Amino acid sequence: MTNYTDMWEKLNLDLKAHDSLMQVLGKFYGDIYLSQQGRLKGAEYLDFVLSEVHGLRVQELQDAKAQGRKIVGTFCVFVPEELTLAADAVQVGLCSGADAGTELAETLVPRNTCALIKSFMGFKLARLCPYIESCDLLVGETTCDGKKKAYEQLAEMAPIHIMEVPQKKDDHDRVLWKTEVLRYKQVIEKLTGKTITADKLKTAIKTVNAKRRALQRLNRLRAAEPAPISGRDVLLVNQISFYDDPVRFTAKINELCDEIEARIKQGQGVAPKGTPRLMLSGCPMAVPNWKLPYIIESSGAVIVSEESCIGSRNTRDLVDESTDTLEGMLDAIADRYLRIDCATFTPNTERLDNIVQLAKESKADGVIHYGLLFCQPYAHEFFKVDKALKDAGIPMLSIETDYSMEDVGQLKTRVEAFVEMLK
Amino acid sequence: MTNYTDMWEKLNLDLKAHDSLMQVLGKFYGDIYLSQQGRLKGAEYLDFVLSEVHGLRVQELQDAKAQGRKIVGTFCVFVPEELTLAADAVQVGLCSGADAGTELAETLVPRNTCALIKSFMGFKLARLCPYIESCDLLVGETTCDGKKKAYEQLAEMAPIHIMEVPQKKDDHDRVLWKTEVLRYKQVIEKLTGKTITADKLKTAIKTVNAKRRALQRLNRLRAAEPAPISGRDVLLVNQISFYDDPVRFTAKINELCDEIEARIKQGQGVAPKGTPRLMLSGCPMAVPNWKLPYIIESSGAVIVSEESCIGSRNTRDLVDESTDTLEGMLDAIADRYLRIDCATFTPNTERLDNIVQLAKESKADGVIHYGLLFCQPYAHEFFKVDKALKDAGIPMLSIETDYSMEDVGQLKTRVEAFVEMLK
Ligand code: SF4
Ligand code: SF4
Ligand code: SF4
Ligand code: SF4
Repeated sequence: MTNYTDMWEKLNLDLKAHDSLMQVLGKFYGDIYLSQQGRLKGAEYLDFVLSEVHGLRVQELQDAKAQGRKIVGTFCVFVPEELTLAADAVQVGLCSGADAGTELAETLVPRNTCALIKSFMGFKLARLCPYIESCDLLVGETTCDGKKKAYEQLAEMAPIHIMEVPQKKDDHDRVLWKTEVLRYKQVIEKLTGKTITADKLKTAIKTVNAKRRALQRLNRLRAAEPAPISGRDVLLVNQISFYDDPVRFTAKINELCDEIEARIKQGQGVAPKGTPRLMLSGCPMAVPNWKLPYIIESSGAVIVSEESCIGSRNTRDLVDESTDTLEGMLDAIADRYLRIDCATFTPNTERLDNIVQLAKESKADGVIHYGLLFCQPYAHEFFKVDKALKDAGIPMLSIETDYSMEDVGQLKTRVEAFVEMLK
Repeated sequence: MTNYTDMWEKLNLDLKAHDSLMQVLGKFYGDIYLSQQGRLKGAEYLDFVLSEVHGLRVQELQDAKAQGRKIVGTFCVFVPEELTLAADAVQVGLCSGADAGTELAETLVPRNTCALIKSFMGFKLARLCPYIESCDLLVGETTCDGKKKAYEQLAEMAPIHIMEVPQKKDDHDRVLWKTEVLRYKQVIEKLTGKTITADKLKTAIKTVNAKRRALQRLNRLRAAEPAPISGRDVLLVNQISFYDDPVRFTAKINELCDEIEARIKQGQGVAPKGTPRLMLSGCPMAVPNWKLPYIIESSGAVIVSEESCIGSRNTRDLVDESTDTLEGMLDAIADRYLRIDCATFTPNTERLDNIVQLAKESKADGVIHYGLLFCQPYAHEFFKVDKALKDAGIPMLSIETDYSMEDVGQLKTRVEAFVEMLK
């Protein structure tokens, strides 16, 4: 294994704390992932990427930087990766799925803040994340109150551009959002010193759509019974989609899908036929937040879909490829991103339809609604999701938790009871 | 005392629960208000209005309705009262300061929601508020996540129009906000069947500005040492400003100011010279949320200013009166409301300047930052307020609480210690 200590030191990480974090993460990954039975061969890619999460991929970012490319870090699926790529920059989603630096985070954000926000603040303050330290620019967005205000604090520690996401989806919201898309184009052009041409944008749109298509394909294959791949592995696939090179990632996921198709033909799966199939719905599960999927899949159920930003909310819609003009493509980008059914919009009724549809398409027997403690948008929508699923005759369990391990036993009991009921 | 039972019954209130609420409120008012020493004569107006809060004023609303006028209920200072009045409608702020119907509210909004939101949801669900039941239209706004999402539930119980408040204050936000102001104009014209003319709008702007000027005058007088009026009484004045008739209110407050001026000339005040002077800053205190002011003023301090929506945030800025065209006035209204320094904006640095300025103008010895539990926007800004006040050399105490009475003892201990330190 290559020694990355020098690189980490150059990135000004807290080496000691970072070492401990890596050890915990390695053990956690072993318990949750490597312990799985009958895993796909294509999962080797996942294992490799994860084992090199703070190594090889970060090294690639340094190499890209050495070649003059810029690194852009994001926290939300509203930042158009197409524009980032068209300006020859690299976009990485900043994982915020671990409990680290929480005490430090609480010197800048309230205790009653969701774990995801505390996580990215904590990683920054505790100097634990080589990605955020590699970024030339962070891009935030006005989505929930918590992130919106936390970015104000982050702005004092790193260069950050904020995209204003509107709160409704009327015509004048579309106008505002289009302005924000154009503004991001300017910002990224200025950062990279490169002009986004129609050709470059066309290529970038194809690259990102190809990534989404691969993930759509993967999700469609999961409708098979028995389920051909574990929910844990698909969650990891989605998580990796935010920071691996998009072209490599797409190729690897398509290979994985080929393997899955073969498996389906042979009637094979990761769990016996008749295993209760669950859909996850709600807040994003950022890497390495694998707690709940592990609990579910070690309670006799298998996860078959994720209605989440680290899941189908990020891959459901493509950017329309039918136009060739720069202006037309920018419009297509604005439209595609404004279709995102995030709970921070009001109203957000399309999410309810999407949930019911995905549950049916993925042949889920039940849904687990996942809320991060103190996340208000999703906690509020829970009441509507509950009703929509009841109306559709689909059972639901609501789980509200954070990144701590204290409630694992209690959650397991509740999940087991729910799974038992579905049998 | 007139018997309003018939009216309440017609408004479909839960009479029994409403009776209990009125009794508790009466006792609470007696303890907190009528017990004050050396009160101004003008406070009789406050006592009368409050004693008739669910009586005479609600009767006036029914009379207005009988004459064909419409009643509009609001939850936030972003709804332009000028337009409501110019369409000959009555605007009432829907008080949300009491713990009532909380259990019912929690069937529609998360437990981790601020008390103010739970209060208006609870009042509606428990049929306790004659104001909300008198409304022909509710007007919500996209400010914090909690309210934005709670309105979706409220929409299923009552007609509601949502104004989209932008999250930043750039040029294109101003464009969006102006569109929302025009849209509200349309909505209110349609509701009332009346056209807003330049003349009517001019008059309405003058009426609302006059109300603000009276409150500005009151606030300026409070800079006197000793403080000429209690913070409790001024809080009540601000609370009443949201639901009493604006012309009557303005006249009464100006009378009160005359009396205060006379008192100041005689060197008289509500507390001895040298009493520590405190400013409140943070979340709104809706009627009858008098808990913290009472604790403060029974701990040997006097409140001299409120940096809050039920306070100077609502009265600091006037609508520019220099234009006579309808278009010009609508612009002036859009501009005035977009200057509001609510914590739901990002960034919101002007609030920090306003806090320091108000603390100085009101000669405050210290500031108490008031946060409603689970209010994320203000909890986040607390960190910046803390720093701004430290930089200005002004001591601060942070209080986070809700409407329950359980923590009164504990709060009193903390406030007393803070006041002691200021002496
Ligand atoms: S849930 Fe909403 S705010 Fe969070 S990442 Fe998704 S789109 Fe962004
Ligand atoms: S989980 Fe909820 S509170 Fe946390 S960042 Fe996402 S939308 Fe905001
Ligand atoms: S604090 Fe903000 S959201 Fe609340 S009433 Fe004031 S302006 Fe409206
Ligand atoms: S106090 Fe805070 S959470 Fe409550 S309604 Fe006002 S801004 Fe929203």
